[in-house]
Amino acid sequence: MEGERGPLLLIGGAEDKVGSRTILSRFAQLAGGNQARITVVATASSFQQLVGQRYMALFTALDVAHVDMLPVHDRVHAQRTEPLHQLDEASGIFITGGDQLKLTAVLGGTPVAQRIRRRHLAGCVIGGTSAGASAAAEHMMAYGASGIPPRKSMMQFAPGLGLISGVVIDQHFGARGRAGRLMTAVAHNPDLLGVGLDEDTAIEINSQGLLTVLGRGSVMIVDGTDMTYTDIHRVPENTPLTIFGMRLHVLSSGYHYNISSRTPWLPTIPLPIPPETEGIEGEGI
Amino acid sequence: MEGERGPLLLIGGAEDKVGSRTILSRFAQLAGGNQARITVVATASSFQQLVGQRYMALFTALDVAHVDMLPVHDRVHAQRTEPLHQLDEASGIFITGGDQLKLTAVLGGTPVAQRIRRRHLAGCVIGGTSAGASAAAEHMMAYGASGIPPRKSMMQFAPGLGLISGVVIDQHFGARGRAGRLMTAVAHNPDLLGVGLDEDTAIEINSQGLLTVLGRGSVMIVDGTDMTYTDIHRVPENTPLTIFGMRLHVLSSGYHYNISSRTPWLPTIPLPIPPETEGIEGEGI
Repeated sequence: MEGERGPLLLIGGAEDKVGSRTILSRFAQLAGGNQARITVVATASSFQQLVGQRYMALFTALDVAHVDMLPVHDRVHAQRTEPLHQLDEASGIFITGGDQLKLTAVLGGTPVAQRIRRRHLAGCVIGGTSAGASAAAEHMMAYGASGIPPRKSMMQFAPGLGLISGVVIDQHFGARGRAGRLMTAVAHNPDLLGVGLDEDTAIEINSQGLLTVLGRGSVMIVDGTDMTYTDIHRVPENTPLTIFGMRLHVLSSGYHYNISSRTPWLPTIPLPIPPETEGIEGEGI
Repeated sequence: MEGERGPLLLIGGAEDKVGSRTILSRFAQLAGGNQARITVVATASSFQQLVGQRYMALFTALDVAHVDMLPVHDRVHAQRTEPLHQLDEASGIFITGGDQLKLTAVLGGTPVAQRIRRRHLAGCVIGGTSAGASAAAEHMMAYGASGIPPRKSMMQFAPGLGLISGVVIDQHFGARGRAGRLMTAVAHNPDLLGVGLDEDTAIEINSQGLLTVLGRGSVMIVDGTDMTYTDIHRVPENTPLTIFGMRLHVLSSGYHYNISSRTPWLPTIPLPIPPETEGIEGEGI
């Protein structure tokens, strides 16, 4: 895999930590399973030490051989060489939740941020949950209000860590009612694909830009390619927006989406038929 | 206008009753202004007398010449001839909020329901707010849960009053987070167009099926024509649905949508340029 970009595992927050732990297990597996060396980046959190230690314990409980935490609390730490060595040795880098603006304000433009990008380009898997998922993209949502109807200025953009471009990621999507701000984001420039991740739900993006959903909830994809009109540039702040012709996909576990061609795909492994629909009545349910 | 179907004014609930009263004024205007004769149908409400009297007072305050209320509390009342005479004399029939299932369970299949349809076909304007808006359609949502991600069985259909077909209407749309259930409704059979009305927001539908938005919020239109896939028929209850390729429009006041051709339109009267964007800097904002 030398020279090939690593996978990205972007999680909508609140991933299961006590039950089947599908998503965290998948991250551990992508990082090398019990041979993995995972570095936790908890810089987004105000409770960095606590959150970092929690994820260290979680990955240790999943039989990961080596787990450590990046000691980067501020921009001075982010200039040191010690964390760079940690990142070089990691087979997986996991970015926790918190505030994505804290993450980019502390790491942006530092050798640590550059090294995370470089390790990803060299094949290292990067995981991000909640703020960590949003900040992974080149363009991230920095602030935002809840609500379904898109409104002018209900969200703002900020530059993210740049691990993936062409998408804007939102998280805690259903739980916090964030459809409006994702559509508003896309209306700014439909060149960006809007991706809304529910809690305990993740997308795994491979080096070819093929996305696979895993976890308990849905992923909503807002594609503005065919948008024929929006009034976002002319309405006052907090006014409802008009948008013609967004294309929307809702994907649950196992489904795919090709980010480059902007097309959804059926699961490559057929989903099991749920027991409710089987029985002597056959198809006549 | 003899022989031409009357306009429909369907409101997402909580329409302004103390300020500019844009929507209620529009209804009064469509019914004939100070020459109007408005009959209020408050059968959907558990507080029928109270709600009916409130709307009577509201229309009276808007200088409507004659306002009365349909005395139909149960199916026995709905068989009487007196309400039919009231409906025959009305130039506008306004159906209040409450429970759409109470409305259809009491009025469904009665001479009163038939007469409302006949009056509408003969040119009488019909208004409906909240439950009254949902029940206007041939297929209505009867129960439903909140939330953005569509899930199997998060809503159920019931037959409505049949004043308009081909659409399913939801109301209190943004305020109650109802995007998921509207998409679920459309996934059942994309022959139906999903229309989600925000509070204090209405659609006026003319006899040609051209819809115009008025009021403070947004109208979300979910068009499943180009849907290429859904798993609604195979997943268990309450499971997140997968849906490929819904087309979504968000329309605010003044915008149009042609229900027959399923195309959004710009306002026919140009919207004023908001003052924020004017000034000596010209376009360079």
